[in-house]
Amino acid sequence: MTDLQRHSIDEIADAVREGRRPAVAWAETSLARVAAYEEIQPAVWITRVPAAEVLAEAATIDRRVAAGEHLPLAGVPFAVKDNIDVAGLPTTAACPAFAYQLEETAPVVERLIAAGALLIGKTNLDQFATGLGGARSPYGACASVYNREYISGGSSSGSAVAVAAGLVAFALGTDTAGSGRVPAAFNHLVGLKPTKGRWSARGVVPACRSQDCVTVFASSAADAALVDDVAAGFDAEDPFSRVAPVDGAPFPKAFTVAVPLPHQLEWFGDGEAARLFEAARARVTAMGGRLIPFDIDPLLAAAELLYQGPWVAERLFATETLLRDRPAAIHPVVRGILQGGLAWSALDAFKADYRLRAYQRYAQALWAAADVLLLPTTATTYRVAEVLAEPLALNANLGRYTNFVNLLDMSAIALPAGFRDNATGFGVTLVGPAFADRALLDLARRYEEIAAMPEAPPLDVSGVKTRVKLAVVGAHLGGMPLHWQLTSREATLVSRCKTAPAYRLYAMAGTVPPKPALIHVGEGGGAIEIEVYELDVAAFGSFVAEVPPPLAIGTVTLEDGTDVKGFVAEPRALDGAEDITALGGWRTYVYQKS
Amino acid sequence: MTDLQRHSIDEIADAVREGRRPAVAWAETSLARVAAYEEIQPAVWITRVPAAEVLAEAATIDRRVAAGEHLPLAGVPFAVKDNIDVAGLPTTAACPAFAYQLEETAPVVERLIAAGALLIGKTNLDQFATGLGGARSPYGACASVYNREYISGGSSSGSAVAVAAGLVAFALGTDTAGSGRVPAAFNHLVGLKPTKGRWSARGVVPACRSQDCVTVFASSAADAALVDDVAAGFDAEDPFSRVAPVDGAPFPKAFTVAVPLPHQLEWFGDGEAARLFEAARARVTAMGGRLIPFDIDPLLAAAELLYQGPWVAERLFATETLLRDRPAAIHPVVRGILQGGLAWSALDAFKADYRLRAYQRYAQALWAAADVLLLPTTATTYRVAEVLAEPLALNANLGRYTNFVNLLDMSAIALPAGFRDNATGFGVTLVGPAFADRALLDLARRYEEIAAMPEAPPLDVSGVKTRVKLAVVGAHLGGMPLHWQLTSREATLVSRCKTAPAYRLYAMAGTVPPKPALIHVGEGGGAIEIEVYELDVAAFGSFVAEVPPPLAIGTVTLEDGTDVKGFVAEPRALDGAEDITALGGWRTYVYQKS
Repeated sequence: MTDLQRHSIDEIADAVREGRRPAVAWAETSLARVAAYEEIQPAVWITRVPAAEVLAEAATIDRRVAAGEHLPLAGVPFAVKDNIDVAGLPTTAACPAFAYQLEETAPVVERLIAAGALLIGKTNLDQFATGLGGARSPYGACASVYNREYISGGSSSGSAVAVAAGLVAFALGTDTAGSGRVPAAFNHLVGLKPTKGRWSARGVVPACRSQDCVTVFASSAADAALVDDVAAGFDAEDPFSRVAPVDGAPFPKAFTVAVPLPHQLEWFGDGEAARLFEAARARVTAMGGRLIPFDIDPLLAAAELLYQGPWVAERLFATETLLRDRPAAIHPVVRGILQGGLAWSALDAFKADYRLRAYQRYAQALWAAADVLLLPTTATTYRVAEVLAEPLALNANLGRYTNFVNLLDMSAIALPAGFRDNATGFGVTLVGPAFADRALLDLARRYEEIAAMPEAPPLDVSGVKTRVKLAVVGAHLGGMPLHWQLTSREATLVSRCKTAPAYRLYAMAGTVPPKPALIHVGEGGGAIEIEVYELDVAAFGSFVAEVPPPLAIGTVTLEDGTDVKGFVAEPRALDGAEDITALGGWRTYVYQKS
Repeated sequence: MTDLQRHSIDEIADAVREGRRPAVAWAETSLARVAAYEEIQPAVWITRVPAAEVLAEAATIDRRVAAGEHLPLAGVPFAVKDNIDVAGLPTTAACPAFAYQLEETAPVVERLIAAGALLIGKTNLDQFATGLGGARSPYGACASVYNREYISGGSSSGSAVAVAAGLVAFALGTDTAGSGRVPAAFNHLVGLKPTKGRWSARGVVPACRSQDCVTVFASSAADAALVDDVAAGFDAEDPFSRVAPVDGAPFPKAFTVAVPLPHQLEWFGDGEAARLFEAARARVTAMGGRLIPFDIDPLLAAAELLYQGPWVAERLFATETLLRDRPAAIHPVVRGILQGGLAWSALDAFKADYRLRAYQRYAQALWAAADVLLLPTTATTYRVAEVLAEPLALNANLGRYTNFVNLLDMSAIALPAGFRDNATGFGVTLVGPAFADRALLDLARRYEEIAAMPEAPPLDVSGVKTRVKLAVVGAHLGGMPLHWQLTSREATLVSRCKTAPAYRLYAMAGTVPPKPALIHVGEGGGAIEIEVYELDVAAFGSFVAEVPPPLAIGTVTLEDGTDVKGFVAEPRALDGAEDITALGGWRTYVYQKS
C-alpha cells in the first residue's frame, strides 16, 4: 500500500482509447486500491458504488470506445464529494439525518460521466461543507495521507485523500471558504477552484449558496485542465451559473505577481511553512514572475464577513428545517455555527453586501496592478486532536488565505509546494480575477515545469487497526452472561452460522457461569451453532488475555470451509463434561436446563 | 403662464455658445418661470438656489464660454431631486428631520455642472423616494401639470413637474421601482432610466440601494441623450458603479418587440389607457417593430419581491436610526412601509436573491427572443385625493409595469404616448437589457420621428390660490381683540411699517371693541403705524365679508409708496370720533387709555 503509483488522466484515458488497457482493468485497479486503503483510512468514503456496478460501467465505457465514441475521460476513475447529487446514491452532506436520494445527477457529474469518467463513490466531508479541517463528520475524521496524526484539510476531505492515496485519478470537491484548496495543500495536490458560476453548482447541497463552487483535486495541472475542459459550461437552470467570456490569453512570459506585505504573512508559529513559501516565491520568480508587495488587509477584512457576518445565515438555506426540528442530528460545532446565522437581519445582509462591494473594488485595483496574487494556501496545519479540541479558532487560522477568494469573485489554483519535516504537505495558491481559470491552469503548468517538486514521502500506513474475526459458541453468544465482553470492545456481529460438521460440544462441569467446550473431532462430529464477531486487533488481544482455562482461542472451521479464530478447549475441559452435540448448540442446552 | 414654451437643451446651449443669448438671460427666464409657477404648484421645490447665486453662476458660465471652454450643457437650467447631495444645500429626502448638508456634490451632478448646466434648485419627492404617486411629502403633494386634480407621479414628482412646466430644461430623478418613469408618463415627458450602475449613485440618499438609479426627465429623446452623454461614467468610489461595455449597435431597422399577452394587460378600468396603448403599439409597428406576445408573469412575480420581500429591509439602511429614535418624524405611510422591513431575516434576503436569479434567467430568455419590451408605463392614473385615501393599493397599481425593471437589471426609457380626456398624460416604456441605454435612446428618437405626438393641453393653472396683502391698523393688529380673524385664516405677517404720510387716524365713538378709522387726507396727514399681512384670496374674501360698517377694505398707500389692500372707513366713521393722529398709531392710543 505504501508503493503509491498515481496514474495521470491522459495515461488512463489514452490506454483505454487505444485498447492497451481497458476501462475494466483500470476499474479493477481502483477497486483494489480502495479496498486496501479502507484499512488505513476507513473515513474516506461515505457511499461507494458497488464493485459489480463499477465493473459493469467500465465495460460499458469499453464498448463505447470500441463503437468509436471519443471519450476524453475514458475509464478514468473518479470520486464525488457527498454533498453533490448522484442518481441512485444517497446524498448525506455528512449528516445521516439529512440524507436524501434523487433520480437526477448533478450536471457537473453528468458531464464527467458522459465523457467516460468512472464513478467509484462519494466521499466524506466536514458536515454541510462547513469546516476546513476535515474532522467535523459523524463518518469519522480524515487525515493527511502522509501523516495520519494530522488533518486532511476540509471540507472536501475524502476527495483529496482519495486522489492523494491513488484510489481515483481525480475527485470533485466544493469550495466556499477554501474547501477545495486547503485539502490540496495538506495532501500535496493541485486544487482548481474555478470562477463562481463557471461550473454548474446545481445538485450541490448549498453551504453558502451564493459563494459555492464545485472544484477538482488532481495530481497535476494538466489533469485539472482536462477535467475543467469537460466540467465547465453554462447551466441555464442554475441561477448562479454564468456565461464565461471568451477564454483570455494566457499570462505573459513575464508576469506580475502580487504578494502580501511582509508583516501580513502570519504563520501561526510555523517556521517551516514560512521557509517553504520563500522557496515558492523563488520558484515563481524563476518562472518569470515579478513580485510586487501588495496590501492584503482589505482582502482579509472581506473574509471576516463570511464567518462573522450575514453569510452565516445563508448556511441555513439547506439546514433550517433540520436545525429547528432535529438540532441534535447536527454535528455540535456545525450546529453552533448554523445557530449563529439566525441572528442576522435582512438589513444586515444588505449592509454587508455594501461593504463587500467596496472590498471588490479594492480587488479590482489589485488586478490593475498584478496578473496574479501568490499566497500560501494555509499558514500552518494541525493535528486531528487539535482541531477537535479547538474547533473554531484553528479553523479560522486555516482559512486566513482562502476565505475571501469567492466573496471577491476570484479564480484560484492551489499548488503543491513541498513538505514539512512531519511529512504534511504545504501548498501555495495562485489567485486570479474572475474567469482567469485557463490562464491560471497554464501558469500552474509552468510552475510544474520550472523544477521538480520534492519527492512525496511514503503514504502513512502506520498503526493500521486490522480487524479479527472470532467465533463464539457459549457464554459469549448474544444474550448470554459474558456477551458484554464483546460489546464493550465494539465487536460487530458478522454472521450467525454453524461450524463445519466436525465438532462435538460438551457442557463443562462446575464452570460459573456454565460454559461449553467445543472439541474438533473430524469425522463423526456435528455442525454446532456459533456466532462470528469481528473486532479490532487490539480489542481482540485484550479479549484473548481474559479467556480462562481450560478454554482457549484457537482456530475454528466454519460450515463454508473458512477458518476463523474461535473458542477451543484444552482436553481437561472434558473432565466430567456432558456431550450435548445432539442439541446442536449451547443455546438449546441452556433453554432446556432453565 | 399657460403659454408654455419649452426650450431644448441644444437650443439653449447653442445660443449660449454662439453668444446669441447668454446664460444669464436663460437664467432670468428660468427664474421668472419658477416664480410664476410658484403660485400654481408651490410644492415643486424643496430648496432653491438663491436667484443672485443662479445669476452669478450663469455669468461664470458665460465667461467660461467666452474663454473658449466647450460646454455641452452651457447655460442649461436644470433641477435635482432632493435626495441627491449638492454642496451647500440641504438634502432632505422630503423629511425635514432627516436633513443634512454636505460640502460634497454628488458626482453625477458635478458632471452636469462641469459641462455648463445651471442648477436652479432641489425638487420635492415622495419621502425617501418611497412611492409612485408624488403625494407622500410634508412639502405638499405635486400634481400633473396638465390637470392638478391628478397626481404628478412619484417619487421624482417635483423634477418631472419642473421640466413639464418649463421651469428647467431637464431634471434629475431617481428610480428604484419606477420613480423616474411614472412621473414622465403623467407629465408627458421622456424619462430615461439608465442601466443600474451606469450613472454614479454616490451622494444619493439610498432608497433601496442595490436597485437605485439616477434618472433624467427631458422634453425629448435628444435632450435625454445629451444629458446621458455627460452623466454616464464609471465611479470607482460608488460600489454599485459598473464599467459599461463598449456601446453596442443601435437596434436594427426591423426589430423585435415583446408585448405582454392580452390577458396580462391590466388597466384597472382605464379604457382610455388601453386605447392609447393600442395606438402606441401601432406606432412601434410603423417604426419597424415586429410585435411578439411574451409571457410577463415571471416579471410581475419578480416585482412582488420589491415591496413584499426583503428588499423592503434595504430601505432601512438610510432610515434605521430615525425610525428608531424619532418615528413620528417620518410620513406615516412611509413609516409603515419601513417598519415592515424590520421583520425580514438575512436568510430571507438570500432566499429572495435565489428567486430573483431565477427570474433574471427568464429575463435573459426574453432578450434572446426580442430586442425590446414595450409596456404601458402605468396602467392608469389617480386623483391626488385618491392616493391619499388609499395609499398602498393604488401605489402598487401604479408600479405594475415598472417595479421589476431594476431588479431584473434592465434599462428603460419612458416615452409620452398621448393624453386622456382629462388631460393627464399617458406613457409607454421601451425596456431593454442592461447597457442597451444608447440603443434605447436611438429607438426613442425614431419613435418621435415616426409621427408627431398630439399637442399637449395647456398647463392647468385653474383655481390658483393667489395671495393678497392686507394692511390692518386697529383691532386686527397683533395682540389686539380681533387679531384671531387673521390667524384663523393662516394670514402671515409681511411687515410692520407705516402708511404714507397722508393719513389721519381717528378713534371711533361707541365701537365694541374700540376701533379706529384710517382717513386718507393727503397733504397734512401723518404716517400711521400699520401691519401688513398676506393671506389666500379665498381667506381674504371671507375676511372682507365680515368687516362691519362704517369700516371697509379699500386701498392703503404704504410709506414706500406701494399700495396694498387695507382698512378704510366711510365718512360716517368720523361722527363723534377723536383725532389721534398725533399718537402715530392705534397701539399707543390703547396703551394710554388702559
